[in-house]
Amino acid sequence: MALLSGLTPVLLALLCLVVGFLLLRSQETSKTTSRKDSKDKERPWVDQDLQDDSETTTAGGGGEDDDWADPAEEEDLAHVPYAPPRYSEESMLQRSTDFYRLMNQRRSVRFLSPEPVPRDVIDRVIHTAGTAPSGAHTEPWTFVVVSDPETKHRIRLIVEEEEEVNYRQRMGDKWVQDLARLRTNWIKEYLDVAPYLILIFKQTYGILPNGKKKTHYYNEISVSISCGILLAALQNVGLVTVTSTPLNCGPQLRLLLNRPANEKLLMLLPVGYPAADATVPDLKRKKVEDIMVHV
Amino acid sequence: MALLSGLTPVLLALLCLVVGFLLLRSQETSKTTSRKDSKDKERPWVDQDLQDDSETTTAGGGGEDDDWADPAEEEDLAHVPYAPPRYSEESMLQRSTDFYRLMNQRRSVRFLSPEPVPRDVIDRVIHTAGTAPSGAHTEPWTFVVVSDPETKHRIRLIVEEEEEVNYRQRMGDKWVQDLARLRTNWIKEYLDVAPYLILIFKQTYGILPNGKKKTHYYNEISVSISCGILLAALQNVGLVTVTSTPLNCGPQLRLLLNRPANEKLLMLLPVGYPAADATVPDLKRKKVEDIMVHV
Repeated sequence: MALLSGLTPVLLALLCLVVGFLLLRSQETSKTTSRKDSKDKERPWVDQDLQDDSETTTAGGGGEDDDWADPAEEEDLAHVPYAPPRYSEESMLQRSTDFYRLMNQRRSVRFLSPEPVPRDVIDRVIHTAGTAPSGAHTEPWTFVVVSDPETKHRIRLIVEEEEEVNYRQRMGDKWVQDLARLRTNWIKEYLDVAPYLILIFKQTYGILPNGKKKTHYYNEISVSISCGILLAALQNVGLVTVTSTPLNCGPQLRLLLNRPANEKLLMLLPVGYPAADATVPDLKRKKVEDIMVHV
Repeated sequence: MALLSGLTPVLLALLCLVVGFLLLRSQETSKTTSRKDSKDKERPWVDQDLQDDSETTTAGGGGEDDDWADPAEEEDLAHVPYAPPRYSEESMLQRSTDFYRLMNQRRSVRFLSPEPVPRDVIDRVIHTAGTAPSGAHTEPWTFVVVSDPETKHRIRLIVEEEEEVNYRQRMGDKWVQDLARLRTNWIKEYLDVAPYLILIFKQTYGILPNGKKKTHYYNEISVSISCGILLAALQNVGLVTVTSTPLNCGPQLRLLLNRPANEKLLMLLPVGYPAADATVPDLKRKKVEDIMVHV
């Protein structure tokens, strides 16, 4: 006991050190947490639903999947000769100029006409989007085409409700002052008006016949490339759209449209003819020399 | 002192508790770390370089940026009437069918001809890619066009070296056995042969005139959409490519090409005519009813 009581000051000192250390650590933890919290508050646009492993890690294919044309399955596929049409240099120049002019006419348009659009054209345009390359040829896209007025309206309600929350959280008091002006932003009339809404879902994984999950490498990049081809196909037939990414609406819209859990909403495109009085902001595009470098 | 020595057992017990607690915590920490490590090992395809805040959080624009056509700056821009060409329904059907057929001819091709391709065509095709929509009209893309044989060869060396490491790490012992077969995969002859390599960089942020960084929302999606339009433009003039995402080569290629720190390599496209004896795997695409749902 005498030995023990002699140790008491040492034990006390040790205890103080340990408690001090613990306090320091817990402070650090709470600092990290609060930093994260404040970061979340600074980034209210983060859509948790869109995050999945394959995207947050920018996953590539294993092995030869690194080349999209080169999925493992191709090892077993016969190779066939490939000879696309060959044009004269003069014709190539003309075709490239014509296609540039056509694409350069494309603008994001929010004022759509309710006029009906032939269904066959929409089907053809989506079929065209499906010709895009994809990681390991997984074709990880689902295009949900909504023409039912009731469903369109429900989509509008979901999108506008989330948008209003987005604006409120972001703008705080300013929201109250600017309500009238803001309404023109979070009110999405085109969701009712457009004859078609195309909701583009990325399939974050596939389901194999044995029920196991199959990773869809680069699914977001693949679906976005497909969307680029879709925009070109729409422009080619004189239809307009606006590329929107409805924030935090994915889960609700997925349920509304009965899409499975491996699908996540990436984009929503209202599609139709432009309204007779449609306007677009007078934006300029960068010159080719500002986006291109030659080596 | 008697009081203190009476306290000794209590202090000892407290000390034991505190030390035990500390041990538990450090164990948890190391568990988390090792779980992360093993996850990294299971996902050797993760390209750390491609990760940036705006992508890993799938950042959207603040406020009205949620609609890409609707950046804050547009508030200050004049609106102008928009009236693109209008086609008859018959013409729309014909145009959509023709464009589908053209795009459906596109295949990823790895056997390219060394024949020269007119520079003007390449410039026009890239200018076309630059008409893509982008988050808040940031146009976050840089297209580096490489025709210099020495630079192409350096790119090939970098890509093949990384690819070999990728294969070795992934395949382990199997690599040794299958070397001959694998060589056909990690050897990228087309990087020397193609008259042009187009390296597509995403600008993860912009630099304002005052030197501050400006977030480029949705930069990866925007650049991928732009790539979709680029693929359409290439196909339209009879050129071929393969959409590749060179794994872990981004930093080296960025330095080789003197691109700034805000640019990250997203894709590498060798571009040219197909070789006379080019082949492609006999892949099928999904039917339109398998990628489209009508509501």
